[in-house]
Amino acid sequence: MRWYVVAALLTVLTSSQGILTTLSQSNGGYKYDYATVPFLAEVFKLLVSSVFLWREMQNSPPPKMTMDWKSVRLYPIPSIIYLIHNNVQFATLTYVDTSTYQIMGNLKIVTTGILFRLFLKRKLTNLQWMAIILLAVGTTTSQVKGCGEASCDSFFSSPIQGYLFGALSACLSALAGVYTEFLMKKNNDSLYWQNVQLYTFGSIFNMGRLLMDDFRSGFEEGPWWQRIFNGYNTTTWLVVLNLGTTGLLVSWLMKYADNIVKVYATSMAMLLTMVLSVILFNFKPTVQLFLGIIICMMSLHMYFAPPSTLVDLPLTVKPVSESVSEVPAE
Amino acid sequence: MRWYVVAALLTVLTSSQGILTTLSQSNGGYKYDYATVPFLAEVFKLLVSSVFLWREMQNSPPPKMTMDWKSVRLYPIPSIIYLIHNNVQFATLTYVDTSTYQIMGNLKIVTTGILFRLFLKRKLTNLQWMAIILLAVGTTTSQVKGCGEASCDSFFSSPIQGYLFGALSACLSALAGVYTEFLMKKNNDSLYWQNVQLYTFGSIFNMGRLLMDDFRSGFEEGPWWQRIFNGYNTTTWLVVLNLGTTGLLVSWLMKYADNIVKVYATSMAMLLTMVLSVILFNFKPTVQLFLGIIICMMSLHMYFAPPSTLVDLPLTVKPVSESVSEVPAE
Repeated sequence: MRWYVVAALLTVLTSSQGILTTLSQSNGGYKYDYATVPFLAEVFKLLVSSVFLWREMQNSPPPKMTMDWKSVRLYPIPSIIYLIHNNVQFATLTYVDTSTYQIMGNLKIVTTGILFRLFLKRKLTNLQWMAIILLAVGTTTSQVKGCGEASCDSFFSSPIQGYLFGALSACLSALAGVYTEFLMKKNNDSLYWQNVQLYTFGSIFNMGRLLMDDFRSGFEEGPWWQRIFNGYNTTTWLVVLNLGTTGLLVSWLMKYADNIVKVYATSMAMLLTMVLSVILFNFKPTVQLFLGIIICMMSLHMYFAPPSTLVDLPLTVKPVSESVSEVPAE
Repeated sequence: MRWYVVAALLTVLTSSQGILTTLSQSNGGYKYDYATVPFLAEVFKLLVSSVFLWREMQNSPPPKMTMDWKSVRLYPIPSIIYLIHNNVQFATLTYVDTSTYQIMGNLKIVTTGILFRLFLKRKLTNLQWMAIILLAVGTTTSQVKGCGEASCDSFFSSPIQGYLFGALSACLSALAGVYTEFLMKKNNDSLYWQNVQLYTFGSIFNMGRLLMDDFRSGFEEGPWWQRIFNGYNTTTWLVVLNLGTTGLLVSWLMKYADNIVKVYATSMAMLLTMVLSVILFNFKPTVQLFLGIIICMMSLHMYFAPPSTLVDLPLTVKPVSESVSEVPAE
C-alpha cells in the first residue's frame, strides 16, 4: 500500500471517530465508562497484530523478530510518555478553559516538526518548515471562536502556568510520536511483532488506568472487569473498532512513512470533522473554518508537492556568478 | 532608491493614514467634509510632481515627455475606473453589512494577481500564486469578527447581489491598479510627466465629485470652494499630506516595481494599523490578528525569497529513475 492511501484512510477514520463518539453519547453524556474504550482498542490491536504475526510465522522466511530484552524494554516507553502526557493535560485544564486548551493543542504540530528534526535527524527544507507552521496556523484559525459564542474568555487571559503546561503537553505528545517512529524504524523487525510488543504494554497500562480509577472510587461500582461492557451499544463498539483501526494505521505510517504524514492526516481529519458536523449536525459554517481549510490545503501542497512544480528550476534563478559551473551538469 | 525601501515607507505611511484619520475625528464623526481630502491630496501630488518635472527640465538631457494626444488620452482612464468603482462600492454596501464588505475587500489581492497575469502577461510561479492566495487569507483571518462583538450577522447570509457586486468591486480595483502599471511602464517617459498627467485628471475628477455633492445637496452649504477648509485642523492637513505622499510612492512603485509589491505593502499596512490600534487605542488583541500576521509573513517570504533558499536544489530531489544521470553532476 502507498503511504498516501493509508494517510487518506487514517484521515477518514479519525474524522469518523469524532462523529461516532458524538453519536455514542446520549443526552450529552456517556452511558458507558469512556476509559474502557482505549483499553478495548488496545486489546483489539493486540489481537489483530497477533493474528497477522502468526500468519507471517507460517510463511518462509519467518518474520524478523528481535526478542532481546534490550530491545523489548523500549516498547513500554511510548505508553509511559502517554501516561505522563495525560496527567499534564489534566494539569493544563486546571489553568485554562477548554477553548484555549484546544487552540494550544495545535502547538504539537510544530513541536513534532522540531523533535522530528532533532531526534530523528530528518532534514526539512525551509518551505517544509513554513508548511508545518502554516498547518498549525490553519487548524488554529478554524477553531477561532466566532461571533456570538457563549463563553468569551480571551485566549491571552489565562495564567502563565497554563501556557507552560500546554507547551509541555505539546512536547510530550510530539515526543511519544517521534519515539514510536524511532522504535518502528530502528531495525527491520516485522511490523506485527513490533505491534504486539507495543500493544501488550499498551493494554497493560490501560488496564492499570482502569484499576486506578476503581481504587479512586473505592470500588463503589465493583471492579472494572465486572462492568466493562455496561452501557455499550453498536455505536460504542464502532468507536472501539475505529480507534483500534486508526491505531494500526498510525503504526503502519510510523514504520513506512513518518510523523509529519500522520500530523497532516490527523489535522485534515479535524477539518473534515468540522465540515461533517456542519452537514450532519447542522452546525453553522464559519468564515474561519473556510479560511482554515484553504490554509491547510496550501500547507499540504507546500509540504508534499515536488519543489520543481512550485518554483522555477534553479537553472533560471541561480545567481549569475554560478552560471558557468552549471554547464557541465547538463 | 530600492523598491523594498519604497514599499516599507508605503507600509508605514498607509498605516499612519488609518491612525491619523481616526485621530482627525471628533466624537466619532468628521468635522470637515471628508470628500475634500482626496481632492487636496490630488492637488498636492500634482504640485509636487510639477516642481520635480520643472527641475528635471532644467537639466540636460531633458526628460522624455510624450505629448501625443493618443498617449495623453489614456491618463484619465484610471480616474474613470475609480469613479465606477466608487459607485459599485456604494451599491455593494446596500446589500451587505460593513464587516462582510471589509472581508470581501481582500478579494482584490487575488484579482490583482489574476489581472496582473492576464493583462500585463507577467508569469508567476505556483508558489507565488499560493503566496497571493495566502496573503488574502491572512488579511481576512485578521478581520474575522471575534467572540462577543456587537453585530453577529453571518458572512454567508447576504443576498447574492452583494457578493456579485463585491466581486465586481474587487475586479475594478485591481483593474485600476494594473492599468496604471501598464500606463507607467508602456514607455520610458519621465515619471513626473506621467504623474502630472495622472494627477491633472485626478484633480479634475475629484473636483467633479465635490461639485456633484453640491448639486445633490442643492448648494445648501454653498459651493465646495467656499467651505473647503471648514473644520480643518493640523491632523486633517497631515491626513492630506500623508494621502498625497502615499499616492506618489504608489506611482513610483507602479513604474519601478509592480502591483504585487503594492498589494503586499498595503496589506502589511492594514495589519500594522491593527497592531498600532492595540497599542495606541487599547484595542483588545485577538488570536485572529496574531494568526493573520503569521500567515501574511509566510506569504511575504514565499513570494519574495529566492526559491533556492526555500527548497533543495533539484539535483538532490530528482526522482530515483534519474539518479544515474546525477553521478556526473556531482
